[in-house]
Amino acid sequence: MPNPTAAMLVIGDEILSGRTRDSNMYHLAGKLAAKGIDLREVRMVPDVADTIVSALNELRAAYDHVFTSGGIGPTHDDITADCVARAFGVGIDVRADARAILASHYPGGAADLNPARLRMARIPDGAVLIENPVSKAPGFSMDNVHVMAGVPSVFEVMVESLLPTLTGGAPLLTENVRIDRGEGDIAGPLAEIDARFPQVAIGSYPVQRDGRFLVNIVLRSADRAALDAATNDVRALAE
Amino acid sequence: MPNPTAAMLVIGDEILSGRTRDSNMYHLAGKLAAKGIDLREVRMVPDVADTIVSALNELRAAYDHVFTSGGIGPTHDDITADCVARAFGVGIDVRADARAILASHYPGGAADLNPARLRMARIPDGAVLIENPVSKAPGFSMDNVHVMAGVPSVFEVMVESLLPTLTGGAPLLTENVRIDRGEGDIAGPLAEIDARFPQVAIGSYPVQRDGRFLVNIVLRSADRAALDAATNDVRALAE
Repeated sequence: MPNPTAAMLVIGDEILSGRTRDSNMYHLAGKLAAKGIDLREVRMVPDVADTIVSALNELRAAYDHVFTSGGIGPTHDDITADCVARAFGVGIDVRADARAILASHYPGGAADLNPARLRMARIPDGAVLIENPVSKAPGFSMDNVHVMAGVPSVFEVMVESLLPTLTGGAPLLTENVRIDRGEGDIAGPLAEIDARFPQVAIGSYPVQRDGRFLVNIVLRSADRAALDAATNDVRALAE
Repeated sequence: MPNPTAAMLVIGDEILSGRTRDSNMYHLAGKLAAKGIDLREVRMVPDVADTIVSALNELRAAYDHVFTSGGIGPTHDDITADCVARAFGVGIDVRADARAILASHYPGGAADLNPARLRMARIPDGAVLIENPVSKAPGFSMDNVHVMAGVPSVFEVMVESLLPTLTGGAPLLTENVRIDRGEGDIAGPLAEIDARFPQVAIGSYPVQRDGRFLVNIVLRSADRAALDAATNDVRALAE
């Protein structure tokens, strides 16, 4: 059975304006590879409702899972939960369980929940909460769309809460071969190896070291025997 | 006149598999903001021709510029130039000027250009070359699609070569206000300021410091007077 597929939607003006360097995509990509869920596409979009809604609808139709980051805080630019409700055509309101979880984060409890903070307890009808041990305000899964915070420390604990609830596939096995030659010298034989092993994905990544270009060959497969055979052939290129 | 708009297409299995942390998107985003070109969307896709071609066609129709990174080296997984030719419905072949530039990089000149290296001189019909002072192999602009390398040191010099040839708009002016309060405490008055200044984009970004949440307010506008007035109002929230 093929692995489940996934897309990620990174939401936030601060990413596209160059103010903030996103780290959530790289974090999630590594976790999904280990889980055997194939990340096939990432989109980064601004805090614009129509853009978010149409990206959500395209991605959730095309992939088994959609993971989002950003836009679930208490301020005016936090519109992700409303966009998810719109994308699914369901209602959204403050939910009692989310409200209680949120209240537990504040010294004064529910009395500290002003209207802005209460926004963080607005959950689309039918969603399942994602736990947030860091700052309580929960994420949620609406069908195959998993909605998480943009702050990396919070995003990461939400991923930890969520991933064990998802069914993974065969984790991708990886081998690396560093070759101390230019990429152009090995491209021909490398293409032949790639053609011989259709079940192994072979990537070639030049790196600059001390002014020279070397190449890292990365081989990936869920099939250990094929991976080992292809890796041996690639190693022979280094000699 | 509104600023030109742009999208970026990051191409490469290594990004989606979590092996490589992309840095080109963050680099380009900062350069475009300074140039007055509004980056509106980023997509990251694998080395799959159909996916690349359809992303190229969607993005080049929707935005004034499309910047791509990755997939223009000499190996079998370097398929970006062919995908651009397919997306535009034009031919692609080794071009004499690109071949000469490439030959200048090797000690043996043109004699060192084996078939794999010659792939890097294949340019879609009608494209304009983008200079690469680091490793010679050029990028190219095909209409509004600007094709650059994935290796960060090469991507960055190609951006330096390309950007002066593009027409920018009003650079985005930015002000930052750090507020030592929780986001939920200021969200209400912040939304009022945001509503009063439609020409200023106001973002609210919580950060964790020593176990507490503070908030960075970022105000962005091309209008200096409006930006200053809104910034003053936001500063008053800190008191």
